[in-house]
Parts: sequence; structure tokens; C-alpha cells
Amino acid sequence: MMTKSDYTAAQSRAAAMIRESGISITDEEAQKVEVADFGLGRLDVEGAQILTLIATGRIAVKIVALFPCQTLPEHWHPRVGEDPGKEETIRVVSGTVHIYIPGDDNMREGIIPNGQKDSYTARHELILKPGDQITMEPGTKHWFQAGQTGAVMYSFSTVARDILDGFTNPDIKRVTEIQEA
Amino acid sequence: MMTKSDYTAAQSRAAAMIRESGISITDEEAQKVEVADFGLGRLDVEGAQILTLIATGRIAVKIVALFPCQTLPEHWHPRVGEDPGKEETIRVVSGTVHIYIPGDDNMREGIIPNGQKDSYTARHELILKPGDQITMEPGTKHWFQAGQTGAVMYSFSTVARDILDGFTNPDIKRVTEIQEA
Repeated sequence: MMTKSDYTAAQSRAAAMIRESGISITDEEAQKVEVADFGLGRLDVEGAQILTLIATGRIAVKIVALFPCQTLPEHWHPRVGEDPGKEETIRVVSGTVHIYIPGDDNMREGIIPNGQKDSYTARHELILKPGDQITMEPGTKHWFQAGQTGAVMYSFSTVARDILDGFTNPDIKRVTEIQEA
Repeated sequence: MMTKSDYTAAQSRAAAMIRESGISITDEEAQKVEVADFGLGRLDVEGAQILTLIATGRIAVKIVALFPCQTLPEHWHPRVGEDPGKEETIRVVSGTVHIYIPGDDNMREGIIPNGQKDSYTARHELILKPGDQITMEPGTKHWFQAGQTGAVMYSFSTVARDILDGFTNPDIKRVTEIQEA
């Protein structure tokens, strides 16, 4: 649950970060930035700001802005019928992004949000800077954390069905509830 | 046919344009910019510089840099077996892009390359600036022309099979031949 004013403040902050990263977005797009607190009510720690540029039945392009040290919780994109699941490439535009996938635990720079050890099982750390990218096969668990200056990245993928994503933390609700003032 | 030195000069020029547009690319990527003269031997008039960021069996992301007034010839993405053909979204990053698709002829700013009237049949003009985008359904004929300062754009699409694209001009060869010095 977020208050309307917290929601719009996060939206404006994210739109400014996107523009500062060098990406041109229209004013209409700036107002469509989605603020996701994943139902956890601690946006600055666990959350993400997402602007969908393209969402057809075949591909999706999104811009993800993360505030300093903000963490996008561990999740994966499951098979849906004939679709083997969303294949996703993350490409960093500004800032540093720590990406965690399954593999040997080499985590050095990341910080597991307080008390959430069980919700972050992937501990293989990749540190991506502007111009770096990684492609994740469908079904791969992954989570992201911005470095200390925040980060802006693209997510290029096959069709997105966010509402069907799996999350390791069972408390997560994908749709942000907004409390009208 | 292009000489090796013309090819690398165009590559460097395009990489510089891409970076000036605000997109971070690695040095390795800069050296992978593809220069396409479409076998016509007049790159500055009809040609394109293309950097493929992603090319999986499901999606493709490319950066297209066009020199001032350079024209990417009319083409379309045909059905291939079960695939209805490439669905493509162009999103402008810098400069102005004139995009031509089938529809009423409202062409005002575009210039048909000399003597090539029959190779440019789509005459419905859309003028796109940074942050503007358009999605083209598979099979739609389209061609692009940069404005006077050149242009950089993203092409976000389903799987790309460039070699199977159709071109209106029968003289076009999709693969650039390079003459070693």
C-alpha cells in the first residue's frame, strides 16, 4: 500500500532519473511510470519504477529505474502454455546494477534486505555498468540491486505477463495498491 | 561493394553518432557496427549503419544510425514458416527520422533518391523526433530517411532474419561486399 502522494513523488523521481540517463521520454510516458512496492510497503528498500515502452503480444521493452540501493525482489518468468516463459535481457544505461542469478555464491557488494534472507536465494553476483548487458533464459531466478547512485536499465524481452511472474517472497503482491488521500 | 577504408570510416562515424546520442556502447560493440550499402555503392545516399545489441531466436534489438539525409531503402519482413514475420518498433533517440509506410501520399519533407522512384512506393510520411516511436506489423513496407543532422534510433523487434527481408529495389543485395585494399 502506498499513498497517492508517495506514488507520484516516486514517479517524478524516476522520470527525472530516466531523463538524466540520456533517454528521451515524452511527458505522457513520464506520467505512466509504474511504481511497484510489491505490496511490501517499503519502496526505498524493495521496489522498482518501471516504464513500459512497448508491450505487444510478442515483445516488451521496459525502462527500469532503481533508487540508490533499491532492490527488485527475486522472481522468475514461468512457462505459460506454449510460451516457454519470458526471455529477458537487461542492459544498463546509467549507474551500477548488481544482478543475482543462480550459481556459486560470490556475493560481495550486494546487501540482502533486513530479515529477508529466505527471499533472496540466488547469490551469484554480476556487476553491470552502462553498456553491459545480460540475457536471462526463461525460468531463471533473478534479482537486482542498484548501486549507491541508483540505476537506469532497459529490459528487452519476449512478451511480458508480469502478473504471472513467480516471486520467492510469498508476501509479495505484484500490483501496487494506492491509498487515495 | 565498399573499400575496407570506407567501411571502417563509416563504422567509426556511426559509433560516434551513437555515443553522442547518449547511448553507452562498449568498444567491442563499436567495432561491430555493420555498414550496409545494400550493394548499391552509394552509402551516403542509400545505406544504413546497424549495431545489433541482441539477436536471440525470439527477439532482436538494434541501433540504427543514419547519416544526414541517408535513406534506408524500402523493405518488408515476410512470413517465415510459422513466424508471421518480424514485428518492429522504431524509437528515435536523436535527430529526426522520416518514416514512410503505405497510406495516403502526404510526403513533404522526404526526398526520393535520384532515379529511384519505383523503389520507394510507400509515401505516407511520419516525422519522428526523440522519444517518438512507431510499431510496424509484419509485412508492412517501410523506408526511413534521416533529417539533415542524421539520426539514431532503436529497432526493437521479434526475431530478425535480415537475409530474408524483401526489398522493392531488385538491385539490392543485403550483404555488403568489402573490397580488401
